[in-house]
Amino acid sequence: MKLRPAAVDLNADLGEGFGAWRLGDDEALLDVITSANVACGFHAGDPSTMHRVCRAAASRGVAIGAQVGYRDLAGFGRRRIDYEFGELRDDVLYQIGALEAFCRAAGERVRYVKPHGALYNTAAVDQGQAEAVVAAVLAYDPGLPVLCQPGSVLYERAVAAGLTATGEGFADRGYLPDGRLVPRSRPDALVHDPAAVVRRATRMAVDGEVVAVDGSVVEVPIRSICVHGDTPGAVELARAVREGLAEQLTVSPFA
Amino acid sequence: MKLRPAAVDLNADLGEGFGAWRLGDDEALLDVITSANVACGFHAGDPSTMHRVCRAAASRGVAIGAQVGYRDLAGFGRRRIDYEFGELRDDVLYQIGALEAFCRAAGERVRYVKPHGALYNTAAVDQGQAEAVVAAVLAYDPGLPVLCQPGSVLYERAVAAGLTATGEGFADRGYLPDGRLVPRSRPDALVHDPAAVVRRATRMAVDGEVVAVDGSVVEVPIRSICVHGDTPGAVELARAVREGLAEQLTVSPFA
Amino acid sequence: MKLRPAAVDLNADLGEGFGAWRLGDDEALLDVITSANVACGFHAGDPSTMHRVCRAAASRGVAIGAQVGYRDLAGFGRRRIDYEFGELRDDVLYQIGALEAFCRAAGERVRYVKPHGALYNTAAVDQGQAEAVVAAVLAYDPGLPVLCQPGSVLYERAVAAGLTATGEGFADRGYLPDGRLVPRSRPDALVHDPAAVVRRATRMAVDGEVVAVDGSVVEVPIRSICVHGDTPGAVELARAVREGLAEQLTVSPFA
Amino acid sequence: MKLRPAAVDLNADLGEGFGAWRLGDDEALLDVITSANVACGFHAGDPSTMHRVCRAAASRGVAIGAQVGYRDLAGFGRRRIDYEFGELRDDVLYQIGALEAFCRAAGERVRYVKPHGALYNTAAVDQGQAEAVVAAVLAYDPGLPVLCQPGSVLYERAVAAGLTATGEGFADRGYLPDGRLVPRSRPDALVHDPAAVVRRATRMAVDGEVVAVDGSVVEVPIRSICVHGDTPGAVELARAVREGLAEQLTVSPFA
Repeated sequence: MKLRPAAVDLNADLGEGFGAWRLGDDEALLDVITSANVACGFHAGDPSTMHRVCRAAASRGVAIGAQVGYRDLAGFGRRRIDYEFGELRDDVLYQIGALEAFCRAAGERVRYVKPHGALYNTAAVDQGQAEAVVAAVLAYDPGLPVLCQPGSVLYERAVAAGLTATGEGFADRGYLPDGRLVPRSRPDALVHDPAAVVRRATRMAVDGEVVAVDGSVVEVPIRSICVHGDTPGAVELARAVREGLAEQLTVSPFA
Repeated sequence: MKLRPAAVDLNADLGEGFGAWRLGDDEALLDVITSANVACGFHAGDPSTMHRVCRAAASRGVAIGAQVGYRDLAGFGRRRIDYEFGELRDDVLYQIGALEAFCRAAGERVRYVKPHGALYNTAAVDQGQAEAVVAAVLAYDPGLPVLCQPGSVLYERAVAAGLTATGEGFADRGYLPDGRLVPRSRPDALVHDPAAVVRRATRMAVDGEVVAVDGSVVEVPIRSICVHGDTPGAVELARAVREGLAEQLTVSPFA
Repeated sequence: MKLRPAAVDLNADLGEGFGAWRLGDDEALLDVITSANVACGFHAGDPSTMHRVCRAAASRGVAIGAQVGYRDLAGFGRRRIDYEFGELRDDVLYQIGALEAFCRAAGERVRYVKPHGALYNTAAVDQGQAEAVVAAVLAYDPGLPVLCQPGSVLYERAVAAGLTATGEGFADRGYLPDGRLVPRSRPDALVHDPAAVVRRATRMAVDGEVVAVDGSVVEVPIRSICVHGDTPGAVELARAVREGLAEQLTVSPFA
Repeated sequence: MKLRPAAVDLNADLGEGFGAWRLGDDEALLDVITSANVACGFHAGDPSTMHRVCRAAASRGVAIGAQVGYRDLAGFGRRRIDYEFGELRDDVLYQIGALEAFCRAAGERVRYVKPHGALYNTAAVDQGQAEAVVAAVLAYDPGLPVLCQPGSVLYERAVAAGLTATGEGFADRGYLPDGRLVPRSRPDALVHDPAAVVRRATRMAVDGEVVAVDGSVVEVPIRSICVHGDTPGAVELARAVREGLAEQLTVSPFA
């Protein structure tokens, strides 16, 4: 018999502006989520934004994670880059350390690592990039969990290396029968009905399963639900997801 | 009666390449110096170079310091930038944290902070920029010494804030009677005779004084001598300085 | 007797996003202005944004100017940088050329040059930076006008070098009796009443004068009025300014 | 019967430093080559380096080409990036335009376009990236030749679009029987014997053929030989290649 989990976490990307440019509503999201994936300067996130977000997160008890990305401000970290192993490991290490400084200034510390954008997608399928992320976390602090998709190569490599891999689910995304997300190019990539999103989030969190696009039920061993803040209505939806989850579980940071 | 100091440190800028580009002979310098000012990525220093230099320094017992600079790769941090206080503090914090990750991976930690180039020169005279550097170090770790010129505004602001300021001397630079360096535009800015450089280094380190360009003797309370590695003959000169110092004092890291 | 000018231009900063980040409402502004100062990639403006804005401007008959700035994405070109003469000249040349490629692709050409942010402010008072901008324009195309403030050092250096300097006025800014703008730190820096802004724009354009903060009337020989699009209500105000001007003059590009 | 060509060109990468960093010996190469592939700022090449190289090339009658690369200073343009079509086209357009400004300042113009590093390799096999480069050249100036490898996808797409594709050969690289280069990972990737390199260059240029690693003779319809300047002995080898070619053909720019 599956045990009902005691708690679920809500994570979102924060601090994704740069200099004069803003993206998303960090303040509003911080009142909804329990874990903040803070951009670390390579795909977004200037130092003062990082400082401000870390202070705001720490003051609300929101856990701070390093949202590490490719060195690609112009592409927002969304273009795959064929890094050499050592270069990617070192770019990830650099970003974790940089964020740690602002955590420290806010009386906190980096609680986890989550890759961003094309690095997230590539490390989910590519052995080399997954291992570079794992090597960075190992070198920095083997106690640091990696937040990623269950079943991904990154998830497996992290576990194989002795790291904690924390699974996350996407309540607003369609799932394939094998547990992967429906590619964004397909019409059923997104779940648009807010009530359905809330229901899916709760089922993922409570029962560890989601209904795939073919109607089959897929197991998704997750401890966190990823929500967004950069589209119209996103913060309201995140709030509804939280309320739905809170009716059945404790909503609290995983790390 | 002045006490003869027990030890002196030799510091130099390291890791000042970027990606495919190299600058100076890091390996050769690491066998001469006791403290490495490692570039942190804003004026120079890509993550893999930082990683390599930190490992090499740690394996030789050379102390690692954060050589923090303006965000200006194209200008190598040599152009003054009119930063706002918070932006400069956060750029410095970011760089210290980034370097810490590589120190950690090498079983070490950041031992001190030294500004680079135009930030060094500006923080030596500008209250605002000096205080931004001090604020960064305070926020990161109040136990971290700041390596700078005795008598500079940065030195004074660091001490006033309760930080340790460590004085450094330049054996190959002419001094004004008030303890400042002769501007580089003047013909007597540099001391060219290697034997004189060695003598000046020893006198600075042992007696805490240097002969200024007008023949007067200036007090320079230093615990470190800055040497260079990026010009022809520089490493040989650094080695001669070290040998001269070693005849009279222990040559060891200050932090 | 002063001649009544035949026409006035309305200029605004456009294309000031970067990659995933947007700033201001380019589309709305393009229907109001006659000259677009397009960011060229150093303080803002990625290549695809430049391409899109140039096409949109060309299709509406809006003149395209190079809004050249310091190499400072993180600071949005708002921090003064102490450039060497040749470096600044070459950074400006580079940006003009880059923009020209997109003008060409849109069947157009760069019509003028206007410095941005801290470069605008510095070149208005600093001989060296003003001359670097002038040297870039001279090297690129001596027929290209420089859009700047009448009475500024840049205006004077441009004219002295044989370039065309085109004066611009700021209808929403307070003026000092000597023709300079009231510093932003002062409470009377901005004119908040929209009707007053429209009146001042018209008086500047038709009579070449503006009432300074001390009540005196200052001569402002301008051929263009600068409007903004990045604050709430800005586009509406720009539209009102255009309507006010159109009642008395032809509103058309100056270059 | 094959016609003996009248002339051959020697091209090399130039201006590949950035700011304080230098790479290769531009001055020495400029006395050997007839076409300079000048880095345009995205993978290397700050504006002042571009200006200096363009002036030096123009004064010697060396043709200037745009060596366009990915936006990746840290990776020197050597890491494949999965660009979207429009973004790559616009990054290429931007770089061509930027270089044109310095050509113009030197009384010259951009004579051709050659992709650099990972863009060169990717556009040689990838339809999308090849077409993005072609689209940029078409938008800028359909009369501009593209310098690339005969038989590559870029070569074919350029010709199909009505552009001039100019073939280049690599005298110091092993060839596969199908005309592609031996991958660098293989031991026979490089030809080390200088005399053999000179012979191969001459045979390529005069007879349009090269001996592949399996002993077969491969047709290589080239008008230019690519030489290097960034390794020890490279400039001497380039000089020997030029002398060898000059005994049988005119060595002159192709564009």
